[in-house]
Amino acid sequence: MTEKLILHEYSQSGNCYKIRLTAGLLGLPLERREYDILKGETRTPEFLAGVNPNGRIPVLQVGDRFIPESNAACFYLADGTELVPEDRFDRADMLRWMFFEQYNHEPNVATLRFWLAFVGEDRLSGLQRALLPGKREAGEAALRLMDEHLAGRRFFVGDRISLADISLYAYTHVAEEGGFRLAACPAVQAWLARVAAAPGYVAM
Amino acid sequence: MTEKLILHEYSQSGNCYKIRLTAGLLGLPLERREYDILKGETRTPEFLAGVNPNGRIPVLQVGDRFIPESNAACFYLADGTELVPEDRFDRADMLRWMFFEQYNHEPNVATLRFWLAFVGEDRLSGLQRALLPGKREAGEAALRLMDEHLAGRRFFVGDRISLADISLYAYTHVAEEGGFRLAACPAVQAWLARVAAAPGYVAM
Repeated sequence: MTEKLILHEYSQSGNCYKIRLTAGLLGLPLERREYDILKGETRTPEFLAGVNPNGRIPVLQVGDRFIPESNAACFYLADGTELVPEDRFDRADMLRWMFFEQYNHEPNVATLRFWLAFVGEDRLSGLQRALLPGKREAGEAALRLMDEHLAGRRFFVGDRISLADISLYAYTHVAEEGGFRLAACPAVQAWLARVAAAPGYVAM
Repeated sequence: MTEKLILHEYSQSGNCYKIRLTAGLLGLPLERREYDILKGETRTPEFLAGVNPNGRIPVLQVGDRFIPESNAACFYLADGTELVPEDRFDRADMLRWMFFEQYNHEPNVATLRFWLAFVGEDRLSGLQRALLPGKREAGEAALRLMDEHLAGRRFFVGDRISLADISLYAYTHVAEEGGFRLAACPAVQAWLARVAAAPGYVAM
């Protein structure tokens, strides 16, 4: 990696942490720029014009180019390394879990953490409050699916850690901040410990 | 591709169509199995145990193995072909648009189409009705972002069609069924025509 890597982030975000964890496991240096999303710092005209027109973090800056979307940024860092399986089916299967993460896991598990631990339940809108039970149920279903998949497996794809694990680890290991009970998912708990023991692991 | 490919699908779903379009552009034969999601045919015990524990279509069957998640299935088919850029940054950038599609586009543009054109506005729940304005606004923002990106570009990444285009084409070209106005997005309209002119294109 010859170009300088800069992570535009909000460090409490699991989506941003994924990229730091990937860089940590690969031993890549990463410069960090912090934005307070609670103060709208990713919706300023400067940010929209210069970093991400979608107004979101994380964004990985590679030299003077930008990669939004956490899982795409992880893929950029890990492409061609042991964190991306060499086998064609396994590589697609890794992406399968990363798309599952963004579609079924993050909008429920991460959103409840954000609403309950960052915004605060008192400050939720009526619509957010109405969405809570459905998101709780969908988040529990996502964790249960992970637990069933991990029973008898060490990692999500094949027998070694890949971006699938990194992607799902980020919000799962702090799921209790959103009121989810990990005690109900023993295979997930054992897997969390395996990820945390990986060489180069960095904490959130 | 030596193993038989079977697409488990609901043919009106854009997520399923993506996979047929990818196979079409690559000239790959695809056997098809239809499930009626309106009748819960992807939530039966047989489907959950044998095809996808997440109870969703599409699922691409490769021999006796299964790949859920539409964009992962497209990646499996196109891996190593000209539909996936060879350049490392471009490959990640392609995935960036595919994650954008599943996070910012599909839950809004595809969901409104499903609610309005398939379920029917009269049959929506109170919660769904309350979500309509936010999803309308978020879907319009996704289409606007695409339009701004495509102004002066032929395709989403580099100068040729990739999975980013296929992924975003699927629900964009039928967005008006969900009440979105494509006339407001001239660069998107021109791009839709370019995708539809690609050799091997198949209609939905």
